[in-house]
Amino acid sequence: MENFVFRNPTKLIFGRGQIARIGQEIPTGARIMMTYGGGSIFKNGIYDQVKAAIKGFQVVEFGGIEANPEYETLLRGVQVAREQKIDYLLAVGGGSVIDGTKFIAAAIHYPGASLWDILVHQENNRGIETVPFGTVLTLPATGSEMNSGAVISRRELKEKIAFSLPNNYPQFSVLDPTACFSLPKRQLENGILDTFVHVMEQYLTYPVSGMIQDRFSEGILQTLIEIGPQILQRSTPDYDLMANFMLSATFGLNGLIAIGVPEDWATHIIGHELTALHGLDHGVTLAIIFPALIDEMRGEKREKMLQYGERVWGITTGSESERLDAVVKATRDFFESLGVKTHLSDYGIGEETIRTITDRFAQRGTRLGEHGTIQAEVIGRILRKAL
Amino acid sequence: MENFVFRNPTKLIFGRGQIARIGQEIPTGARIMMTYGGGSIFKNGIYDQVKAAIKGFQVVEFGGIEANPEYETLLRGVQVAREQKIDYLLAVGGGSVIDGTKFIAAAIHYPGASLWDILVHQENNRGIETVPFGTVLTLPATGSEMNSGAVISRRELKEKIAFSLPNNYPQFSVLDPTACFSLPKRQLENGILDTFVHVMEQYLTYPVSGMIQDRFSEGILQTLIEIGPQILQRSTPDYDLMANFMLSATFGLNGLIAIGVPEDWATHIIGHELTALHGLDHGVTLAIIFPALIDEMRGEKREKMLQYGERVWGITTGSESERLDAVVKATRDFFESLGVKTHLSDYGIGEETIRTITDRFAQRGTRLGEHGTIQAEVIGRILRKAL
Repeated sequence: MENFVFRNPTKLIFGRGQIARIGQEIPTGARIMMTYGGGSIFKNGIYDQVKAAIKGFQVVEFGGIEANPEYETLLRGVQVAREQKIDYLLAVGGGSVIDGTKFIAAAIHYPGASLWDILVHQENNRGIETVPFGTVLTLPATGSEMNSGAVISRRELKEKIAFSLPNNYPQFSVLDPTACFSLPKRQLENGILDTFVHVMEQYLTYPVSGMIQDRFSEGILQTLIEIGPQILQRSTPDYDLMANFMLSATFGLNGLIAIGVPEDWATHIIGHELTALHGLDHGVTLAIIFPALIDEMRGEKREKMLQYGERVWGITTGSESERLDAVVKATRDFFESLGVKTHLSDYGIGEETIRTITDRFAQRGTRLGEHGTIQAEVIGRILRKAL
Repeated sequence: MENFVFRNPTKLIFGRGQIARIGQEIPTGARIMMTYGGGSIFKNGIYDQVKAAIKGFQVVEFGGIEANPEYETLLRGVQVAREQKIDYLLAVGGGSVIDGTKFIAAAIHYPGASLWDILVHQENNRGIETVPFGTVLTLPATGSEMNSGAVISRRELKEKIAFSLPNNYPQFSVLDPTACFSLPKRQLENGILDTFVHVMEQYLTYPVSGMIQDRFSEGILQTLIEIGPQILQRSTPDYDLMANFMLSATFGLNGLIAIGVPEDWATHIIGHELTALHGLDHGVTLAIIFPALIDEMRGEKREKMLQYGERVWGITTGSESERLDAVVKATRDFFESLGVKTHLSDYGIGEETIRTITDRFAQRGTRLGEHGTIQAEVIGRILRKAL
């Protein structure tokens, strides 16, 4: 096992009716900026629940944080927060709203001239003062409700930058499964795929005797395989299924399963290109890339793939090559069972895009994967396996 | 799933050589009281490593905290800490040293006339000021390195009281597997048993659709079953086995697997009587009580016992009654494989002690177990099943 440091101070407040206690979690007299996205919280009643819970506080609202939260939007949020002397943020939404709020939290008191430096000079900013914030999660997927990371986009520069500050954890996050009951099927599909592949990026590398971490990861994968199709097929939402989905997403990316083990993240990084070039949903890009990637990387990932096959899918017979084939197929079939097509050709994407993407990675000199061996040429082979 | 609140702010610093970085974790200029037990840290080199790591700080030492830490001993520690104006505690040892240090941390600034009130009037003390502390763990078992609980004994009154304060988590805990390499076999046996039964007390109750929690618990149980006998049989300690044992103990009682699920704790409470009356090791009492308890409580625990049997032991055939028998037997056999006898008669304990214990519980009117149905009469049946 590798050495590690793990600390996660976020307070999870889980269950039915828990939004009502937000007011107790925020310091008396705080001036709150409540952030949200496109307005789904007005339709499903979450807005009203939150407003009732923080009655008595001075509250400014900042809505309109979009999917892949945009730097320019967030700058407006920072300006409002500064003008209104905001000292507490409350993000109500999914990963994009929470990510955007993390940027605003870091930016309000940032002393530098350009807020862009928060993203591009992270190494200088580890000690900066951040404004405390809480969250109310309405879409399980990114784990942002219990980690200190965020991804911010700046379309003007075609940039999408991940940033993380040691003090930028939510102080509390409310996870009420009923707040997710009105989610459309497409967002649930994407959330399940995203969670599954988050776990895989931390699990399916090479063995380092992380026995506890492996069991925890496998436990989340088994749960997603059990509940994913049920969540999508039900005409009325089920509380316990949604509760376990929320816990899967949160524990899938809160640092727990990453302790002491190597990580990959190549599927995410390659997938981002498909979103950038063709606008595919993030979850869909993962469903396309991941099966092809483990097929191509079966040499390096051999031992963990066999372990995953045996423990998660019960694949124990056949030659090693047959078992590895069966692992790829079981994974792809699971994604397809969620209603998501897993081939580039299903989306009208072909050789031209593959060349564009491999050229981009070749120019950047990127080396992805847990061993740094996934370079442009390998990425080309992965994408061709996904055709 | 039940509603829950979960927050655990302890920073885990894990791995070889990590004791060296303790100095960075303690505020500059802190006046440290270093606490420890009977002196094993002098023999295995941990004392020297810790002293080297906190060179430059003003350090007072307070050794001699015994197993089942004694109130009178800890009062002396409080007096030293007050005289020396200590503002940081550093516990170096196992669960008893850490538990004792938690009491000292709560007592130093306690405004009340009697420090005993910290233990017997916990409901009044939730907001009291505690002195910050860190730990260096040398014996995996109690999970005290990553929770806010402690058990304090007062022989004079024949009392053993568990206490917990919301702010009494270690600020950091160093888990270096090599610090456990010199542990005697008996302490390892006890630690493995204690960890296994901690998990069981939070897992083997009744199903509430805590799918993630169940998988995490089963993962720790599977790991202990895999590594326990190996740890005890090896003539030279193995780093990765010890690393996974440490993680099992820490995650087995840091609140994680208890989120949203019922808990039992009857085995621990009944076992305490055997320690009080016959001086049996805590781990041994668990090995005696637990198999008998699940045998007796197979009605209430039926669904989880069958799930545990199937997922952890692969017990899938036979009638339900046969499978439940097999679950009890597999558990008992595992304990015996650790070299621990699991019957009262193995320790010369018989009917007389059973009557004493059931009389005690009858007088107290205790109702144990996740449904509160384990009363004196049931405790008698459990103990007779353990004869």
